[in-house]
Amino acid sequence: MKKDRLKIVTIGGGSSYTPELIEGYIKRKDELPIKEIWLVDIEEGKEKLEIVGNLAKRMVENAGLDWEIHLTLDRREALKDADFVSTQFRVGLLDARIKDERIPLSHGLIGQETNGAGGMFKAFRTVPVILDIVKDMKELCPDAWLVNFTNPSGMITEAVLKYGNFEKVVGLCNVPINHIMHESKLIEKNPDDLFFHFAGLNHHHWHKVYDKEGNDLTELVIEKMFNSNEPIVKNIRYIPFFKEQIRDLGMLPCSYHQYYYLQDDMLKKELEEYAKNETRAEKVKKVEAELFELYKDPNLKEKPAQLSQRGGTYYSDAACELISSIYNDKRSTMVVSTRNNGALADLPYDCAVEVSSIITASGPKPINFGKLPTAARGLVQVMKAMEELTIEAAVTGNYGTALQAFILNPLVPGGQIARTVLNEMLVAHKKHLPQFAEAIEKIEKGELK
Amino acid sequence: MKKDRLKIVTIGGGSSYTPELIEGYIKRKDELPIKEIWLVDIEEGKEKLEIVGNLAKRMVENAGLDWEIHLTLDRREALKDADFVSTQFRVGLLDARIKDERIPLSHGLIGQETNGAGGMFKAFRTVPVILDIVKDMKELCPDAWLVNFTNPSGMITEAVLKYGNFEKVVGLCNVPINHIMHESKLIEKNPDDLFFHFAGLNHHHWHKVYDKEGNDLTELVIEKMFNSNEPIVKNIRYIPFFKEQIRDLGMLPCSYHQYYYLQDDMLKKELEEYAKNETRAEKVKKVEAELFELYKDPNLKEKPAQLSQRGGTYYSDAACELISSIYNDKRSTMVVSTRNNGALADLPYDCAVEVSSIITASGPKPINFGKLPTAARGLVQVMKAMEELTIEAAVTGNYGTALQAFILNPLVPGGQIARTVLNEMLVAHKKHLPQFAEAIEKIEKGELK
Amino acid sequence: MKKDRLKIVTIGGGSSYTPELIEGYIKRKDELPIKEIWLVDIEEGKEKLEIVGNLAKRMVENAGLDWEIHLTLDRREALKDADFVSTQFRVGLLDARIKDERIPLSHGLIGQETNGAGGMFKAFRTVPVILDIVKDMKELCPDAWLVNFTNPSGMITEAVLKYGNFEKVVGLCNVPINHIMHESKLIEKNPDDLFFHFAGLNHHHWHKVYDKEGNDLTELVIEKMFNSNEPIVKNIRYIPFFKEQIRDLGMLPCSYHQYYYLQDDMLKKELEEYAKNETRAEKVKKVEAELFELYKDPNLKEKPAQLSQRGGTYYSDAACELISSIYNDKRSTMVVSTRNNGALADLPYDCAVEVSSIITASGPKPINFGKLPTAARGLVQVMKAMEELTIEAAVTGNYGTALQAFILNPLVPGGQIARTVLNEMLVAHKKHLPQFAEAIEKIEKGELK
Amino acid sequence: MKKDRLKIVTIGGGSSYTPELIEGYIKRKDELPIKEIWLVDIEEGKEKLEIVGNLAKRMVENAGLDWEIHLTLDRREALKDADFVSTQFRVGLLDARIKDERIPLSHGLIGQETNGAGGMFKAFRTVPVILDIVKDMKELCPDAWLVNFTNPSGMITEAVLKYGNFEKVVGLCNVPINHIMHESKLIEKNPDDLFFHFAGLNHHHWHKVYDKEGNDLTELVIEKMFNSNEPIVKNIRYIPFFKEQIRDLGMLPCSYHQYYYLQDDMLKKELEEYAKNETRAEKVKKVEAELFELYKDPNLKEKPAQLSQRGGTYYSDAACELISSIYNDKRSTMVVSTRNNGALADLPYDCAVEVSSIITASGPKPINFGKLPTAARGLVQVMKAMEELTIEAAVTGNYGTALQAFILNPLVPGGQIARTVLNEMLVAHKKHLPQFAEAIEKIEKGELK
Repeated sequence: MKKDRLKIVTIGGGSSYTPELIEGYIKRKDELPIKEIWLVDIEEGKEKLEIVGNLAKRMVENAGLDWEIHLTLDRREALKDADFVSTQFRVGLLDARIKDERIPLSHGLIGQETNGAGGMFKAFRTVPVILDIVKDMKELCPDAWLVNFTNPSGMITEAVLKYGNFEKVVGLCNVPINHIMHESKLIEKNPDDLFFHFAGLNHHHWHKVYDKEGNDLTELVIEKMFNSNEPIVKNIRYIPFFKEQIRDLGMLPCSYHQYYYLQDDMLKKELEEYAKNETRAEKVKKVEAELFELYKDPNLKEKPAQLSQRGGTYYSDAACELISSIYNDKRSTMVVSTRNNGALADLPYDCAVEVSSIITASGPKPINFGKLPTAARGLVQVMKAMEELTIEAAVTGNYGTALQAFILNPLVPGGQIARTVLNEMLVAHKKHLPQFAEAIEKIEKGELK
Repeated sequence: MKKDRLKIVTIGGGSSYTPELIEGYIKRKDELPIKEIWLVDIEEGKEKLEIVGNLAKRMVENAGLDWEIHLTLDRREALKDADFVSTQFRVGLLDARIKDERIPLSHGLIGQETNGAGGMFKAFRTVPVILDIVKDMKELCPDAWLVNFTNPSGMITEAVLKYGNFEKVVGLCNVPINHIMHESKLIEKNPDDLFFHFAGLNHHHWHKVYDKEGNDLTELVIEKMFNSNEPIVKNIRYIPFFKEQIRDLGMLPCSYHQYYYLQDDMLKKELEEYAKNETRAEKVKKVEAELFELYKDPNLKEKPAQLSQRGGTYYSDAACELISSIYNDKRSTMVVSTRNNGALADLPYDCAVEVSSIITASGPKPINFGKLPTAARGLVQVMKAMEELTIEAAVTGNYGTALQAFILNPLVPGGQIARTVLNEMLVAHKKHLPQFAEAIEKIEKGELK
Repeated sequence: MKKDRLKIVTIGGGSSYTPELIEGYIKRKDELPIKEIWLVDIEEGKEKLEIVGNLAKRMVENAGLDWEIHLTLDRREALKDADFVSTQFRVGLLDARIKDERIPLSHGLIGQETNGAGGMFKAFRTVPVILDIVKDMKELCPDAWLVNFTNPSGMITEAVLKYGNFEKVVGLCNVPINHIMHESKLIEKNPDDLFFHFAGLNHHHWHKVYDKEGNDLTELVIEKMFNSNEPIVKNIRYIPFFKEQIRDLGMLPCSYHQYYYLQDDMLKKELEEYAKNETRAEKVKKVEAELFELYKDPNLKEKPAQLSQRGGTYYSDAACELISSIYNDKRSTMVVSTRNNGALADLPYDCAVEVSSIITASGPKPINFGKLPTAARGLVQVMKAMEELTIEAAVTGNYGTALQAFILNPLVPGGQIARTVLNEMLVAHKKHLPQFAEAIEKIEKGELK
Repeated sequence: MKKDRLKIVTIGGGSSYTPELIEGYIKRKDELPIKEIWLVDIEEGKEKLEIVGNLAKRMVENAGLDWEIHLTLDRREALKDADFVSTQFRVGLLDARIKDERIPLSHGLIGQETNGAGGMFKAFRTVPVILDIVKDMKELCPDAWLVNFTNPSGMITEAVLKYGNFEKVVGLCNVPINHIMHESKLIEKNPDDLFFHFAGLNHHHWHKVYDKEGNDLTELVIEKMFNSNEPIVKNIRYIPFFKEQIRDLGMLPCSYHQYYYLQDDMLKKELEEYAKNETRAEKVKKVEAELFELYKDPNLKEKPAQLSQRGGTYYSDAACELISSIYNDKRSTMVVSTRNNGALADLPYDCAVEVSSIITASGPKPINFGKLPTAARGLVQVMKAMEELTIEAAVTGNYGTALQAFILNPLVPGGQIARTVLNEMLVAHKKHLPQFAEAIEKIEKGELK
């Protein structure tokens, strides 16, 4: 029997994104019979949880809804009998992200908090925690869906599938929806009148665009893209791609491909920001501080407009839509991280991919994409191998595996520099990397250089 | 620009199914801006074309529509600038089907007009004709969609894709929709509240069933199936499957699996019918004669109820729905024969498979199914190899290839019997098998035994 | 360090083949520093073990060798510290094989003791025993190689790899070497001057032939084969293949393909033999009785010529050569059953295949064969699925799985007949099928028909 | 019939390597019944051809052989009825290689003449020429084998297979044999007592080592490697790999992996050499000049010892051994570039791979390797995609494809720098890149930046 009163849990409930999530639920109040929303955080996030949790309460009340909003540090109490669990936590908070970005840059490398050296460390810190959450879920709410939007979203999804042995997980990201909105506007079409076919990995996917008449508009969008100067996703700086490259590829890259296709130019921009203490992480920290000031205002009863600057536009909205699509068996098309099962013929059968999928009550069903063009194939294959090694290292704490993952990453050149950055980051994040304790000790003693 | 006045062509327009097709279009009059319907047939079918064509005109007029109905023997005129071309022709008419069924039975083998010896000969006769049609389409209406429901629908689709090098083709069959309707009723659910995931080949697929709460109902449907005695598809006799086998398989077989899973028992039934001159082909011939008598009645202005006995329930309806789904970019889920592209990991990447697909304006996008259970995998793989060889032999007229295809078919035992049946059928269908002229001559001269 | 005194164990040491095995070792006395040969059998085979064991002792003595020949019923004592273990046992002895052949024939089906219904039952009886042997080996001689020539050799090898998790296993069969000898003679060449490339499954493989100048002689051998009337392998009756089929296939089938390619004709021959109580199993039983009479003669000190009639020509010789090739790291090419690892692209990565391999000290390294022609691909795929299900049923005793395997087998038609034969055989072999106890009880009570 | 008088052709006969090749033939005089050796070169290489050709004549005469040595600029005359054709030419001579190395270094990138930017340009220059040679061979000596050791050897082999549609090609490289010799010495074993299993791409492979007792010695060799300071291949500078990385990988990398695993450190070394005008190309040019001085000496009748400094140790020897292995159907194991056919499950079925193969009269038969460890898989997949795009660009002259290949290469960072280097190299090599004429013109006009 379909549940008619839902318990929804958000781990990392003290996040500045939470108001958007609450707004998303309020928008879907007729689709989702919510009874309770539990916002969970840890001791260090208690204050933020209070602030944002109280705003959430005001928003719900203001919408005339009788939903219970629970704020708690007790994750297990929250998970008990939950129907949906969304995760948006950040181990080590923004200070950890600052290290993820600044340490590599201090050695002349892009940090990139999702699939560069920074993202790999985010995985190292997050994988053990998500596996712990999954362990609790299997005990306390084995039928619940886990909707993850903690980055690196694809690797976290794969860790849950492979090492958590938990099938009811979906990874989410707002990059695809940003592309859909942006490119529809570029060609002056309603997004509902277009079919976007995405395939690849989280922050590393490509797509094709078709219209209602069955025409492949991909080339047209490519041309329009080169006549526009607007960034697709607000939170990453924008450098135009190379026309000849993208035309030859025949697919639209995602905005994060800038870090690969334009690596050297992006590095230069980031080094300037680094010098001015204006890396993305530092900016975000500032924006967040301002947001929390706003959130404190007892008169604020709606999501403040400033939140959209934070960069996660459509993020929480996508999460709410996914939850509603599963709950209501909508069978609409969304782009999610899920098990491959052959949807992308070029990648391992059982890895996680980010691909256009039909969302049903029994989860996402990937729409088959088949083989990628050669240049996309090679890149996505090396990225997937890097992801697999990163997840493995995150689980085992094996230094050699971490080093292999580092050197395989196209944003990290091989050689002593890779070890130096790896070592410095291991020590800097020591507190959140218990699995690497042995290696860190050796580094600190100078035995591992 | 989307066409706002459609030209739809039906090849084999004189078929007894045509009234259902017309009814299907009439039902969708608000979705499909039809201007002209062209019913095409050959000289031998002229009389039937007149009869059914006039009924079609009366039906359209009765519905108050201004659509033009054209009856013609000139296929090229009809194809000129067509938007959709559906094919439902039968080379050699029902007399050929009678041979397809009776010759094998006369040697103690199941004929099976879709994937037994009979179906292989239907492919031998049909493939050259469909390739000829495709050649015309490439010249006269290169942007039109070819919606094939001439059997063997999967092999014809593969022939068009591989040898016709024409991508805009979809194969259709009413077996999946019959399963959907029948099984929904069995478990007392609305079909719209269920998700049926089909995978396999035409007349050789399996499926799983999920409800709106995400539960896998496959086992439940299997149990209900064994408590019911009703045939799923009207036009094939019904013998219950084996519970232990189907439970162990964990998927629902299609009704045509009876010929494989219950081969010996089906053969006995068919031999009884053969002895009484009541093979399916003979029955159909009788039903058709009666139908055409009915069709002649100038007062008949709607599809007569008796047509449903013919066996093609939902057949034409499925075709109309597919056309409307493509035209309107409905993105609904339908089960169609289309290029694999990895949707079924166990089958060649570029073969045709029959699989649940999202129907978009740019054609069907298969929903990924992944790997099949072992027993289904082995069977579908040998069937696909048989299909590939059958299509190849249909194109080349190579006797050795035809013999290989025959012996590979699980319904045809290896040995002299296979040659004997093959030879007798080649000679019997001589008129429609110009590609096999050389082999047939040798058989007739007694040089090939 | 390479062992310089070898302990070789033969399980099923009382087999009539043992003298050939001993002869094989004697021939290789300079290659293999044998210290002890242990012939192991079970209580029921004690008498035969004595007879053949004493002959073995006389043969060794006659050759002037100091090898110790141990005869024992204590398998564990024999396995302790063994270097090579060969298995040639037959659970249920020849009486079980007689049932394997006669029960299917009594219902009009080919029994086929290797991959028909008979062979499947041989697997049902043998798999639990081989897994028990492997369990002992892992404890008592974990570094020994297991050289299996108990049939069905391919399935036994796969069971050891997949369910025994034991890597040091090689499956052997004398069919490839018989083809090599026979076909070399056909084209009047020295076998050493030809390269035979085999690929497929045990008793279900094909091959191509090349000469020292690099010419592909496959077609030539095919033509010669059709001008010859001689059987390739002595122990199976011979019916010529169809020229058109084999030419179109472009590879040489193995002799066991007769059961598939000429199923109906083989069945007729077998039914005649059945009627005269002259099935292969019955003949072998007679030959064996005669052989053991010969073996008793205390003056017999060499392998008697009559043994070659038994049918296993080259069988034991192949085993000795394999052992020597591994021991001496010969890197010669032999055809063995081993893990696929991609050598045959059309079959699962980790299944067992029979394929030309380089024999090294670290085991067989398959020579890559790639993709098979379509007709071979489909047939080998359905056979492999049947094998996988047979092995699974042999391990689990699941009736549904056994039924699936039966119906998938091209030699067993689907339908009630499959159940009837399955049930009758389960009951007939009850003593050796403890894993199927539950199903057998139901059959005996009439609850499973 | 096997030819008993061989005609062997070497294209690029004026190479400084030729004396080694001649020596290799002389060593195998009893295995190879050579009648004629044709050394072919182009107008620009005429002088060198004369010098080295005369030395070759003296060497043959000195060995007491009656072989005819022909020196010619007429390639077609040489190819007529040839039995083996080896290719060792260098389009643009060493000056082109100097550009291949220096231009990237001038922008801070490694050039790497085999699979870096330099090697890609070598492919751009060489592919059209090899395809031209293959066209001639198909006409003039269709049964001859093409033994290529022009770099990038793997890409050239793939171009011949895919675009030349010529199957009788083998690519050779001396890196594997250098590893075999070096590592055997490291562990104090005779190379014949070891089995080296190689898999990957040219200059991008890994291997495992087994001894005659079947032990996997890979770990042992890894440990020994880290206790040694000697370079494996003389012509590339040596930096030790990282122990933790290689141990975790579990395979031995080839010496060229230094460019990837130690990219940053190698770059630093190369920049120092660049500054001193001592890049490898410049050094080689000097060594070659000295060699040709030596070669001129009419008293020199043997390969001079100084040639070994040139770096191609074992290179020509490998070619002679391959020719003898094919001619004599030796079935020995060699590491060659050949069509994959599934030997490496992680790479496209029909690409060229470099893998341990059995050399037969009908060509190399790869020994199956199966799946690579994750880190090797990802790297080899991106390299193969880069190779495919490079070859495609070499054939089509498409700038976008060349740019895609460049950016995909792990040694070339994405961004404007990739374009800048690509453009500068296109212009610098203009004379040898007719296929890129259009793009080069635009670059020169400043229209493509």
